[in-house]
Amino acid sequence: MRVRSIGFSTTICTYPRTPRNFHLFVSTRRYSHSDMSVVNRSVHPFDKSRLDALLNRRFFYAPAFEIYGGVAGLYDYGPPGSSLQANIMAEWRKHFIIEDHMLELDTTIMTPAPVFETSGHVARFADWMVKDTKTGDVLRADHLVKSVLEARLAGDREARGLAAQPKDDEKDKKRKKKAKTVAVQLADELVKEFESILAQLDNYSGPEIGELCRRYDIRNPDTDNEVGEPQQFNLMFASSIGPTGQHPGYLRPETAQGHFLNFSRLLEFNNGRVPFASAQIGRSFRNEISPRAGLLRVREFTMGEIEHFVDPEDKSHEKFREVRDTVLSLLDRHVQVSGSTQVTQMTIGEAVDKGIVANETLGYFLVRIHLFLIKIGINPKRLRFRQHMANEMAHYAADCWDAEIENATGWTECVGCADRAAYDLSVHSARTGQPLVVRQALKEPIVTEREVPEFNKKVVGKTYGRDAGLLQKVVGEMDESQLTKLKGQLAQGQATISAEGKEFTITPDLLAIERKTFKQSIREFTPNVIEPSFGFGRILYTLLEHSFWCREQDIERGVLSLPPVVAPTKVLIVPLSAKEEFSPLVQEVSTKLRKAGIFSRVDDSNTSIGKRYARNDELGTPFGVTLDFASVQNRTMTLRERDTTDQLIGPIDNVIAVVTDLVQGTIDWPAACKRLPAYDGVQAVD
Amino acid sequence: MRVRSIGFSTTICTYPRTPRNFHLFVSTRRYSHSDMSVVNRSVHPFDKSRLDALLNRRFFYAPAFEIYGGVAGLYDYGPPGSSLQANIMAEWRKHFIIEDHMLELDTTIMTPAPVFETSGHVARFADWMVKDTKTGDVLRADHLVKSVLEARLAGDREARGLAAQPKDDEKDKKRKKKAKTVAVQLADELVKEFESILAQLDNYSGPEIGELCRRYDIRNPDTDNEVGEPQQFNLMFASSIGPTGQHPGYLRPETAQGHFLNFSRLLEFNNGRVPFASAQIGRSFRNEISPRAGLLRVREFTMGEIEHFVDPEDKSHEKFREVRDTVLSLLDRHVQVSGSTQVTQMTIGEAVDKGIVANETLGYFLVRIHLFLIKIGINPKRLRFRQHMANEMAHYAADCWDAEIENATGWTECVGCADRAAYDLSVHSARTGQPLVVRQALKEPIVTEREVPEFNKKVVGKTYGRDAGLLQKVVGEMDESQLTKLKGQLAQGQATISAEGKEFTITPDLLAIERKTFKQSIREFTPNVIEPSFGFGRILYTLLEHSFWCREQDIERGVLSLPPVVAPTKVLIVPLSAKEEFSPLVQEVSTKLRKAGIFSRVDDSNTSIGKRYARNDELGTPFGVTLDFASVQNRTMTLRERDTTDQLIGPIDNVIAVVTDLVQGTIDWPAACKRLPAYDGVQAVD
Repeated sequence: MRVRSIGFSTTICTYPRTPRNFHLFVSTRRYSHSDMSVVNRSVHPFDKSRLDALLNRRFFYAPAFEIYGGVAGLYDYGPPGSSLQANIMAEWRKHFIIEDHMLELDTTIMTPAPVFETSGHVARFADWMVKDTKTGDVLRADHLVKSVLEARLAGDREARGLAAQPKDDEKDKKRKKKAKTVAVQLADELVKEFESILAQLDNYSGPEIGELCRRYDIRNPDTDNEVGEPQQFNLMFASSIGPTGQHPGYLRPETAQGHFLNFSRLLEFNNGRVPFASAQIGRSFRNEISPRAGLLRVREFTMGEIEHFVDPEDKSHEKFREVRDTVLSLLDRHVQVSGSTQVTQMTIGEAVDKGIVANETLGYFLVRIHLFLIKIGINPKRLRFRQHMANEMAHYAADCWDAEIENATGWTECVGCADRAAYDLSVHSARTGQPLVVRQALKEPIVTEREVPEFNKKVVGKTYGRDAGLLQKVVGEMDESQLTKLKGQLAQGQATISAEGKEFTITPDLLAIERKTFKQSIREFTPNVIEPSFGFGRILYTLLEHSFWCREQDIERGVLSLPPVVAPTKVLIVPLSAKEEFSPLVQEVSTKLRKAGIFSRVDDSNTSIGKRYARNDELGTPFGVTLDFASVQNRTMTLRERDTTDQLIGPIDNVIAVVTDLVQGTIDWPAACKRLPAYDGVQAVD
Repeated sequence: MRVRSIGFSTTICTYPRTPRNFHLFVSTRRYSHSDMSVVNRSVHPFDKSRLDALLNRRFFYAPAFEIYGGVAGLYDYGPPGSSLQANIMAEWRKHFIIEDHMLELDTTIMTPAPVFETSGHVARFADWMVKDTKTGDVLRADHLVKSVLEARLAGDREARGLAAQPKDDEKDKKRKKKAKTVAVQLADELVKEFESILAQLDNYSGPEIGELCRRYDIRNPDTDNEVGEPQQFNLMFASSIGPTGQHPGYLRPETAQGHFLNFSRLLEFNNGRVPFASAQIGRSFRNEISPRAGLLRVREFTMGEIEHFVDPEDKSHEKFREVRDTVLSLLDRHVQVSGSTQVTQMTIGEAVDKGIVANETLGYFLVRIHLFLIKIGINPKRLRFRQHMANEMAHYAADCWDAEIENATGWTECVGCADRAAYDLSVHSARTGQPLVVRQALKEPIVTEREVPEFNKKVVGKTYGRDAGLLQKVVGEMDESQLTKLKGQLAQGQATISAEGKEFTITPDLLAIERKTFKQSIREFTPNVIEPSFGFGRILYTLLEHSFWCREQDIERGVLSLPPVVAPTKVLIVPLSAKEEFSPLVQEVSTKLRKAGIFSRVDDSNTSIGKRYARNDELGTPFGVTLDFASVQNRTMTLRERDTTDQLIGPIDNVIAVVTDLVQGTIDWPAACKRLPAYDGVQAVD
């Protein structure tokens, strides 16, 4: 059992699924942002090292503090990466916050310790680590076991003369600290044991992992030294607020607590009504033990979280009918428990009807997540929703689904969507004494009757002195049946009650028990929370993988087929040269595009138009317009589409109108081809 | 001397100017977002407590962790505050990044210690604090002296029967920890001493402040205990990266270092050319000793920083001519040193020509900052640019100007704009050994000649064995004149050289010295940095102050006159009631506005239209449209302007067209009044 995946599985905090079933992805015929403009991208199989080189060279992102040697798990985004991220987040705001009138928040990262003591993070937001007994090097316990056992299995296959699986080679290249593969054959039985351990590694506790290390003599592969007992390492960065050193604080590992603590203000802002949702984009921090998976496992990341507060007795959603026919790829918990990873294509309506997805609100968000990811360019065939298994889910959660996106390292959780029930509001309310509840006027008051004891305080005090309080307490805690019985005894004349070794004789002048009517016109409840939680770095990276391919004629010419909605630059303006004769036109086109709300860049560098286009294909720029002598003479301009490299030509203003529609997504490329004639001078510029 | 204002004055890190010359601001006739729609806002003087109550009630922002008792200096933004902040930042992106093609970055907050050791923050980013000798309470040293001496001066005025100045009352209400005023008359001489100390408090060092405490028996006003010696307290939040505890890290106090560390990548992205600018919006942290000024002094804040890299020998700016006639309010250092705070209105062209502002690039940014602040709604009459005085400026800076905005606490630095020279790139380069330089091809190569010694290594080795290295080193370090002399001696047959007590006789077969020609075709230089640095929280708060007023007829009816460009909601849609007959029209108008890119909200709550408008005046919503029975019948709609409460009427589509133009700023309200007839049923709805 890895504690983190138990207590905190509802946010982006479970690890991406291990790449057990991973097979090298070979890209097949895929579609560009428009279903019609099919481009053959199957010629070159996906090559992660080429993509990584491109992303580094063009400064999408790079290790932070690189000139100081870098720090694992910290990355800086350069200009194209920042723009891509900003565009993804802007679309997220539109798609979720504006579309569903959510209440946006911006809460602090630095958080005083009591908040995370209450939420359970101080005690449980931890991973198991082991220390090299001689060097003191720290390793993540489960990663160590995995690495060593996988290496032994690979060595066994080698010794048996079986071909190494491609994934072994692939991984060897990527993981510096991977255990070395030595060709040693293992007993058949041991092979089975190792395979079984690897298949359920997520279920081992720290001490159990320690036991595995001893039993199988698992050592630090770098030094061959033994490792010590697994210890828990809390993943929150700790600090101290103010000058006295007496106020410990943590950097938040999720933004969610900021929503919960402001619940009463949010509820008031929403005129006291549920359901409503708050939303926040912000930075969070996790002090990972040894992050080594690029943007997929980092120590500082930007996330988007939505907390949808809903009546626990009514989790229907008013817009569910709008989405109920959407088909999703679902991998439910029963399928997983049976040992399969076979997804089912099913409408969300059917999934909710059959109880596979717990309720309409959860179902509504799964569809909205699906639509968002597709819109920004994630390949729907490499997207699935995986339900948490019972042992993996937080103890308070009713249901939890992860949007997992396939990439070169396997299936990675990029969005979590959980029903957190009333857990968080309840614990914060209990700790602070502040009611975090919804008070709802009942349409029809609920009328109840019950027996109510009433003491004659003066007489009780006189009779029992200091013990009067004890007597009143005991009677006050009686339930309905006890009170009825007591009432009967009093009607007979008197009754006797024992408490703490004392005996009380009570008579009707001491105590009257009467049946009273109560009218409840307000219903008070702690709302439940449905939480979609997005890791933008993971989404950004997987999107880059899904967008990357190389031109058939030249593997060096990488292309990022980012949809216009997220592409860092929408239109590249390419004058034939930097000569002055073109600058009035460049200025004109640039200004007109800006007025149309379209972000363009000018590339007037001293190289061929074809090279300039190729360079911008690497940045994912979907369209290019060229200004040449014909433009100066006839006021025409060519328009080039990135994926097909098709070119059209037309009067400058017409081209601007068409490219505006293309960028806004109101038309696709085939439709554009109907509005402008093809340009037949392709060879000249590409 | 407060260390922070010496080493780090170029970012938002000097404190806002003390409110010495502060007099209660009484609002005068002011202008709405359109110069034409004059509204009389002078009736009720500005009342900060009313504004604070509004901001809290409508959840613009609130103390973070409020239900846990709050933490000083940490605030959460609620829905209107988040939107306002997001809109200010979006406008910032457009105004600076897009307009000037800056390279956007997003770098990490968590920073390994060596970076801030190099930048000087570990040693010097500190304030002086004193401890109560008995309770251990911590106070900021300069604030303590200020508070106690001001209280004594106030007591003196009281004893002399002089009326208390309004500012005293004002402050007493706000500062809990302010020293109590006791009516005790002081010697005339002492009054002068105290006034002189207060006027130059920023110039006292920690030990000097300690001396003041002893000399004037300054004690903790809460306990009347003595305080200890002032100690430095570093304002960076410290943490530790990774599980070993061996990698200290800090939360950045500014984003600037992230730009500098990525300089080489940025330069490459810009094809090796300067000038260019990088820009970043991000969170920064300062562990203030005892923050007590709302959003003006916080421990966690969002800032926007631009680093403009420029050739130190050419700080002209190609767009300077576009701004040179803009008039700014300047308060230069000479005026301040002469004891005055009288601003001068001057065009930036004149200021640069006269050397008041150091160079064109700095001047260009001052104008751009001015234009940005005006655009988002800052009152230009309450904005000034104050130059740092010599003793206040960082030792490496060539010039530094703060954009200061007047508010109820005085003049507050909201934007800093400094010429940081080559300091940062130089120190990081020296520490890491990485060249952070620009290499520029010279148009004309520089040709130089010099003497070059060349040893016959074989012979030298044979002759001097282990000492051959020493000999070569000594000759290698000779300057031109020494080499010329040696060459002359060799021409005579031989020469003698002494080094480390050894003597070398050298002959022409051992060493030849020849005159050679060198051609330098590359110029290498460390660029200088011009840095505009924005504190969005301070800007947001002062904007709210400048926007706030109350209706003449009713002081309870607060209005925030935010310009449409930053207003959280642009258009309020107000159906007469929530009844179904209005919902198709509400839907239609809402959809059409969204398609026009305009963010609207529907208020169909069960209260009068007038009340609903008033409620949204508090949120700064500039326009409202009402749908009533006439709308259903005639497809007409009224349009209401927030500041004037004027209403127009017209066909729904016409009103949408007009309000779209209004929000986009292409027309103002008087122009709108020419396009639609006035609505004469004002009384009915307002």
